[in-house]
Amino acid sequence: MPRRASDVRSRIVTRFRYLSFLTDYGLEDGFVAACHGVAARLAPHAGIIDVTHLVPPGDIRRGAAVLAQTVPYLPPAVHVAVVDPGVGTARRGVAVAAGDSVFVGPDNGLLSWAVTASGGAARAFSLTSRQLWLDRVTATFHGRDIFMPVAAHLAAGAELAAAGEEIDVGELVTLPAPERLVRGSVAEGEVLTVDRFGNVQLTITASDAAQIGLAPGGAVLVRSGTHQLRMPYREMFGAVPPGELVAYADSAGLICLAVNSGDAGQRLGLPPGARVSITAIPQTIPR
Amino acid sequence: MPRRASDVRSRIVTRFRYLSFLTDYGLEDGFVAACHGVAARLAPHAGIIDVTHLVPPGDIRRGAAVLAQTVPYLPPAVHVAVVDPGVGTARRGVAVAAGDSVFVGPDNGLLSWAVTASGGAARAFSLTSRQLWLDRVTATFHGRDIFMPVAAHLAAGAELAAAGEEIDVGELVTLPAPERLVRGSVAEGEVLTVDRFGNVQLTITASDAAQIGLAPGGAVLVRSGTHQLRMPYREMFGAVPPGELVAYADSAGLICLAVNSGDAGQRLGLPPGARVSITAIPQTIPR
Amino acid sequence: MPRRASDVRSRIVTRFRYLSFLTDYGLEDGFVAACHGVAARLAPHAGIIDVTHLVPPGDIRRGAAVLAQTVPYLPPAVHVAVVDPGVGTARRGVAVAAGDSVFVGPDNGLLSWAVTASGGAARAFSLTSRQLWLDRVTATFHGRDIFMPVAAHLAAGAELAAAGEEIDVGELVTLPAPERLVRGSVAEGEVLTVDRFGNVQLTITASDAAQIGLAPGGAVLVRSGTHQLRMPYREMFGAVPPGELVAYADSAGLICLAVNSGDAGQRLGLPPGARVSITAIPQTIPR
Repeated sequence: MPRRASDVRSRIVTRFRYLSFLTDYGLEDGFVAACHGVAARLAPHAGIIDVTHLVPPGDIRRGAAVLAQTVPYLPPAVHVAVVDPGVGTARRGVAVAAGDSVFVGPDNGLLSWAVTASGGAARAFSLTSRQLWLDRVTATFHGRDIFMPVAAHLAAGAELAAAGEEIDVGELVTLPAPERLVRGSVAEGEVLTVDRFGNVQLTITASDAAQIGLAPGGAVLVRSGTHQLRMPYREMFGAVPPGELVAYADSAGLICLAVNSGDAGQRLGLPPGARVSITAIPQTIPR
Repeated sequence: MPRRASDVRSRIVTRFRYLSFLTDYGLEDGFVAACHGVAARLAPHAGIIDVTHLVPPGDIRRGAAVLAQTVPYLPPAVHVAVVDPGVGTARRGVAVAAGDSVFVGPDNGLLSWAVTASGGAARAFSLTSRQLWLDRVTATFHGRDIFMPVAAHLAAGAELAAAGEEIDVGELVTLPAPERLVRGSVAEGEVLTVDRFGNVQLTITASDAAQIGLAPGGAVLVRSGTHQLRMPYREMFGAVPPGELVAYADSAGLICLAVNSGDAGQRLGLPPGARVSITAIPQTIPR
Repeated sequence: MPRRASDVRSRIVTRFRYLSFLTDYGLEDGFVAACHGVAARLAPHAGIIDVTHLVPPGDIRRGAAVLAQTVPYLPPAVHVAVVDPGVGTARRGVAVAAGDSVFVGPDNGLLSWAVTASGGAARAFSLTSRQLWLDRVTATFHGRDIFMPVAAHLAAGAELAAAGEEIDVGELVTLPAPERLVRGSVAEGEVLTVDRFGNVQLTITASDAAQIGLAPGGAVLVRSGTHQLRMPYREMFGAVPPGELVAYADSAGLICLAVNSGDAGQRLGLPPGARVSITAIPQTIPR
C-alpha cells in the first residue's frame, strides 16, 4: 500500500496525453463539441478519445457498463464521464485516481465499475475548487462548466489535490456489482447490455460458464421467467449458420446470446436487467 | 474600431491551431471523412472539432442556432459550417472574420448568428480564388471541394484576403434574429430548438424572464395557440420530481421547458418555430 | 513494374501520420473507442480519421462503396476497415499495399474497391504474425485485437512484411465490380448506395451518361422493373425546384437520382442492388 500511494502521488503531478469522454449528450446538438472546445483551450496538448455519447439519457448503469468494458483498452488518461440525471442537485462531482488514470464525473455510480476494472480507487477528491471550473457555471451543463475543465486542468498537470477536498474512497457512490451467482449446475445473472448488433450480453462470466460445465461445442439451456430455449455454445457467433441462436463468451469475457447475422435482442425480447439463468445440457458424445 | 481592424489584420496572417466543422452530412456516409481528409492534407497541424453533423438536412436555422451556442466555448478557429440546400446555385461562399476566428461557409445565413455571437463581422470575403479550392470542383459537394480546402489554407497561414474579393459586411445574408418581445408582464417568443433530451429551448432569454418578474422558485404560465399550462420556474430541471414539467434558464441563457427525466418536446408537441408566450404567476408567499 | 516494387519497398518502412477507420460497429457501444485506445497506445503519433462506423451490420458491399469513394480524399494512411460477418471463422486478415497507402482488414472483399481506386494491390500479406496482435485475442473482436494493432504497428514504422506471410495479390477476395453496361442508347446498372439525403447513387458513371447522349439540360427516362419515370438531367439537384426529381452526376462521378430538398430513395423505393436503366430523351430544342 505505501508503494501504491507513492506511485499515485508521483503520478498526479504528471500530465496526461489523453482525455476520454463518455456522455448521454447525443450527437445532434453542440454539447459534446462545447466540451471538446473547453478541453482544447485548457489542455491543447491532449488528444480526446470519445467513448460514446449515445448512452440512453440518464441511463447510469448502461454508461457504467460501456465505460468499464472500454477503459482497459484506453491509454492512461483522465476519463471524463457524464450521465447525470441529478445535475444541479446536491450530488457531488468527484475525481478518482485508479490504476494509471483519473476518473472525473458525478458521484452517482457511473464511474464505479470502471474504477473497479482499473484496480479500485486509490484516492478520491470532491470537486470543490472553483478555480478549476469555468468562470460562469450553469445549473444544467456541468460537463462543460465543471467536469471537463477540471479534467483538462488535471491533464495539463494540475495536482489531483487541487481539484478539491480529499474524501474517503469508501464514501464514493458505487453501483451494485452486476448480479451473478453459480449454484451447482446453474449460473444465474441478468442482461447487462444489448449492443448495436443485438447481442445480449449477460452478467454471467466465461469462468462461471466453465464452472457449470459449459465448454465450446456443447449446448446450453437458457431460462428467463417462464421461457426457456436451448442453443449451442460455441467459440463465436460465426460458428452457427446465419439466423441461428448461439451462446458464446464475448470480447469482454461475458456470456453473450446472439443470432448469427441477426438481432438476438429483438428475437429474445430480453432487455437490460432481465433475469436469466443458464445450464449446461449434457451431451451424448459420439465415439 | 481602428484598434480592432489592426487586430484583425495581424491575425489573418496567423495560423489557426483548430478547425471546427458543422454540417448536415450525417455520419453514415463518408462525406465528413472526405472533408477531414482534405484538411489533413492541407493543414496537418490543425485539430478538427466536429460541432455536429446531424443538423436535419437543409435546416439552416437549426444549424445556425447550434453553431452560435457552441462557438463561444471553442478555441480561436476557422469554423467551417455547411448546411447548403442551394449548393451549386448562385449563392456565394464566404469567409468572415469575427472576434478571434474566421467563419467559412455558404452565404445563406447559416453563419450569421455565430458571427453575431463572436462580436460581429469585421471583414468578409467572397470565395472567388480558385487556387484555394480543390483542382476538381463538383457541383454538389462544396464542403469537400471549396469550403474545407479554403478553411484549411487559412488555418495553415494563408491571408484572409487570398480567399477572394472583399465584400461589404453589410451585404452578408443574415437570418432574422430569433423573435422575442417583452410586453408588460408577458414575454413572447418562439421555440428555437429541441435538444436530444426533448428540452424545448425558447428564444426568450433569462433576462427577459427577470424583466417580467419571473424568479427561480416562482411559477410560470406558458401559452401556445389556444393551449396554456402552468409549471414551476426553477434553477434547473432537477429541482422538480421526475416526470414533472419545469421551466428554467438553460446553459445558453435561454428559457427552456423541460420534463425532469422525460421528453418535453414530445409531451408539449412544440416544434421549432412554434410561438410561445410566458407570464409570471403571482404567488402567495407563506409567512 | 520494377520501379513500383522498389517504391513500395521504400515506403513500407515509413511511418504513417494517419490511420483511417471504417466499421459497422455503430456509435452507441465502446467498440470504436477501444480500437482508438489500442491505436493511441501503439501509435500515439498517428491521427485517426473515422470514415464511418454506421455501415449497416455485415453489409460488406456498402462498406466497400463508402471506403472507395472516400479514400481518394484521405492523406496517405493505414486504412483499417472492419465489416466482418465472418469474424472468428476461417477467413483471413490481410494487409494490402496500394498507391501510397496500406489497407488492413478481413479478406472478404471489403477492401477491394478502395484498393482498386488506389491503383490496385501492389503487395499483400496475410496477418499471421501474432507478435503484432494484442496479447489476448478474442474470437469476435478482431478489430480491436488484430486489425487495429497490426495497423498501428505499421503506422509506427513496422515493415509491411512483418505483418505475416506474403500472398499473391491475385488471391485476394474481391467484390465483383459494380454492374454497368452501355448498350446503344441505354445505360444499365444498379443502385450502388442511398445516402443520408436519400440521393440514389447508381453504378452508371457520368461518362456512361455522356456516351448515351445525356447532357446537362436534357432529360432522362429511368426504368426499373416495370416502372419508368422521366426526369430532367442537370448539373446538380439545386437546378430543379424543391420537391422535384432530377438526375445528375454526383460528387463521386456517378449518376444520381434525387429530389431537391427531398428524399428520392423514399419516393422511388429503389434500394441498393435494384436494377436500373437510363435513356436520353431526345428533345426538341427551341430556336
